[in-house]
Amino acid sequence: MSNYIEPIEKLIRQFTKLPGVGSKTAQRYALTVLSMTEQEAKIFAEAIVEAKENVAVCSVCGNYTDSDPCHICQTRDNSVICVVQEAKDVIAIERLGEYRGVYHVLGGVLNPLKGVGRDDLRMAELFKRLTGDVKEVILATDTSTEGEATATYVARFVKQYGIKVTRLAQGISIGSELQYADEVTLSRAFSNRKEL
Amino acid sequence: MSNYIEPIEKLIRQFTKLPGVGSKTAQRYALTVLSMTEQEAKIFAEAIVEAKENVAVCSVCGNYTDSDPCHICQTRDNSVICVVQEAKDVIAIERLGEYRGVYHVLGGVLNPLKGVGRDDLRMAELFKRLTGDVKEVILATDTSTEGEATATYVARFVKQYGIKVTRLAQGISIGSELQYADEVTLSRAFSNRKEL
Repeated sequence: MSNYIEPIEKLIRQFTKLPGVGSKTAQRYALTVLSMTEQEAKIFAEAIVEAKENVAVCSVCGNYTDSDPCHICQTRDNSVICVVQEAKDVIAIERLGEYRGVYHVLGGVLNPLKGVGRDDLRMAELFKRLTGDVKEVILATDTSTEGEATATYVARFVKQYGIKVTRLAQGISIGSELQYADEVTLSRAFSNRKEL
Repeated sequence: MSNYIEPIEKLIRQFTKLPGVGSKTAQRYALTVLSMTEQEAKIFAEAIVEAKENVAVCSVCGNYTDSDPCHICQTRDNSVICVVQEAKDVIAIERLGEYRGVYHVLGGVLNPLKGVGRDDLRMAELFKRLTGDVKEVILATDTSTEGEATATYVARFVKQYGIKVTRLAQGISIGSELQYADEVTLSRAFSNRKEL
């Protein structure tokens, strides 16, 4: 496609592995790297290798960590477990600064069409955590069809232990106009309506 | 802003150095790197270091090269010099497969407001190349105000040597950057180039 010399082509190919990066964007990134000093480029490269080397997955919750168990599992209220799809969802919730419980990262959602079953997710690890201490499991998977199905599956299992299971409220997002809400959301908002 | 552990934060900061990458995109890139195998991440990191180490700037034309002078300077018609702003513009023209002459990469354009003068560009190197062999200088800087001004400046100088100076036809839409021109427009602009 392009006519760069081999080391530049190689770098462009690497950048296209990033999500949403096509060959034009990868070219821009590669040329930016070339305009860095050798020192800057080295620091960039080291950050990649070091992130892979120094970041582990917490054996309890599945979140990225540099200690095992992670500092959230070590220091927070273990009686409430919030189940999320991905590590980045943990960050989104942590940003609120409100939640004091621990997490469980599934690493995806059930998706039979793509061949993702319960053994491909960290389901067994979750069920192992359901000891007497756990009082509530909060399901915070996405509201996609797969996210919903996964939540339903986990809920059914957790309830067998007599543990309270909750799902994040679904409705019209704050600040948005009613007329632009999609039908499913509006319908859900109606059936979930709260007495004031 | 986010709550990742240090090695991930570090990687995110590195990715934000790429053009057009904000913290959200950098997060996605960093998490993609974490989901790579250690081997894949190493290859990525090496591509960055190797590109910096193995890519040099041609001492004649200023284009990126792995040999000096570059293969274009060594093998092509040295009597026609196409003057461009950046190395990526060379790629855009090379993609046409029509031009048989050599290039001269200025490394930017004259921009008094940003303090970019002729000594910050590879102007002297260009004028040094204007020996008896050179029959034509094609000005292919962007059609921005600065690109135009730079073309005018170079044209005035080159004409003193009695060398023919041409500018890419203004079929390229004014205000856009050369690298984004579609191939037909770029090709038309080449064949319609006007003597100044």
